[in-house]
Amino acid sequence: MNPSSDRRQITGFSNPTVKYLRSLRDKKHRKAAGKFLAEGLRLLTDARECGHVPEILVMASGRDPHPLLDALESDVTAAGGEVIETTPDILGKITGKANPQAVAGVFAEFDTSLASLDRSAAPIWLVAQALRDPGNLGTMLRTGDAVGAGGLILIDDCADPFSVEAVRASMGAVFTQKLARARWDEFLPWLRTGPGQLVAASLRDAVPYRGAPYQAPCFILVGNESQGLPEEYEAACDLRVTMPMRGRADSLNAAMAGAVLAYEVLAELEG
Amino acid sequence: MNPSSDRRQITGFSNPTVKYLRSLRDKKHRKAAGKFLAEGLRLLTDARECGHVPEILVMASGRDPHPLLDALESDVTAAGGEVIETTPDILGKITGKANPQAVAGVFAEFDTSLASLDRSAAPIWLVAQALRDPGNLGTMLRTGDAVGAGGLILIDDCADPFSVEAVRASMGAVFTQKLARARWDEFLPWLRTGPGQLVAASLRDAVPYRGAPYQAPCFILVGNESQGLPEEYEAACDLRVTMPMRGRADSLNAAMAGAVLAYEVLAELEG
Repeated sequence: MNPSSDRRQITGFSNPTVKYLRSLRDKKHRKAAGKFLAEGLRLLTDARECGHVPEILVMASGRDPHPLLDALESDVTAAGGEVIETTPDILGKITGKANPQAVAGVFAEFDTSLASLDRSAAPIWLVAQALRDPGNLGTMLRTGDAVGAGGLILIDDCADPFSVEAVRASMGAVFTQKLARARWDEFLPWLRTGPGQLVAASLRDAVPYRGAPYQAPCFILVGNESQGLPEEYEAACDLRVTMPMRGRADSLNAAMAGAVLAYEVLAELEG
Repeated sequence: MNPSSDRRQITGFSNPTVKYLRSLRDKKHRKAAGKFLAEGLRLLTDARECGHVPEILVMASGRDPHPLLDALESDVTAAGGEVIETTPDILGKITGKANPQAVAGVFAEFDTSLASLDRSAAPIWLVAQALRDPGNLGTMLRTGDAVGAGGLILIDDCADPFSVEAVRASMGAVFTQKLARARWDEFLPWLRTGPGQLVAASLRDAVPYRGAPYQAPCFILVGNESQGLPEEYEAACDLRVTMPMRGRADSLNAAMAGAVLAYEVLAELEG
């Protein structure tokens, strides 16, 4: 049987399914539906190889054939999902990009409770406080993937990790990294129920970041893009480290500081 | 004399000066005018302290008074520049932000020729090839500032460092870092006319990035966000280094890789 016979064809912008898919670009609708959008064959293939099969697969008509796309389509159908074929214009409306990737998928949001994390599963965890930029958030997921971190814990009011921008910037790491969301007064007690060193870049009472006594599992805490970490959050850390600042600025971009620190921790732990 | 008496008041969206200022958000018009926009009191104060006084200063009416703004206004007037007061709505139109900062300035673009660089002025220089994202570009400027780099050299077709987005992401580092733009076949001969080690992150024929034999002045070359460096560019480097990649992805965000490498080079050079 030709797999294309299972595809639902949609050609109208006002189709209710198109409206539903477009609505997932909006945080409120994502939250209500518990679903999110990811786009691009490479990202969807990464997702599939990590065990995440989209519930709905949307393909542009007239795209180039690809064996990975065929494999994806088979998996979606086998899992009882839906495959939709539509025009590139409509796909662009759904993903909000003028030149959309040829394929997008709808996934169920993951469990983002602290209880879902196994802290012993990785030597490094990234923790972001009030990170507002979805691009920074996605980049931190990507950095976590690169250093072999277990996941990203979002403290207080952060950008939505399931936004199209964050998913895009994560380059697929949203599927390889665990995600958790918590208030500070939930996170800290949870952390203290087991092993875990909380480390922050700081200007106060800190040791040089290079060669500092990092210990696994090491939780690297990065603060808000413009305010940095609240003083009491810094004070609660087990280790405060300083990074050289040779110029006029007194801080790095939050995602950047996280990456430099994460690579340092990786090197020291593996020393 | 009250400085406010020198301020030109503009209240109409269709005013030609407003149109001119708005046009500077567009690359073509920036290039034709040789000017660019920067916004925010902190950024303009950084600029002033680095010797860059705006040719035109635009202030929102009804903003809070501030001694730094007074100082800026005096300097602009003393340098023969123009001070404009307008409504917050019009200022928002000019900067493209719904909640604009209370002040913006127009600056003359800098000399971005290789000849304007003094390579002996700093131990580290960042070099980006075909960097397309203005946010990444601004972030690299900020990283350069943090590690005490001399500047950022843009190779081939990069985002415009004078775009509002790049200037904003640089957090003022556009005024502290030197900027140069060149084709690869201009850059490489220029580099070879003096001391300078060209280093790239690479997967081929490379040594671990940690503890590699870096030498000042060290030129850290970072490739395009999606394609990475062309093979012949990598081959022309004096040193190729690998960074650990523990996850599914085979690369870091370009600005992130640049930051991790720049901090490593800084630590090794100062070892």
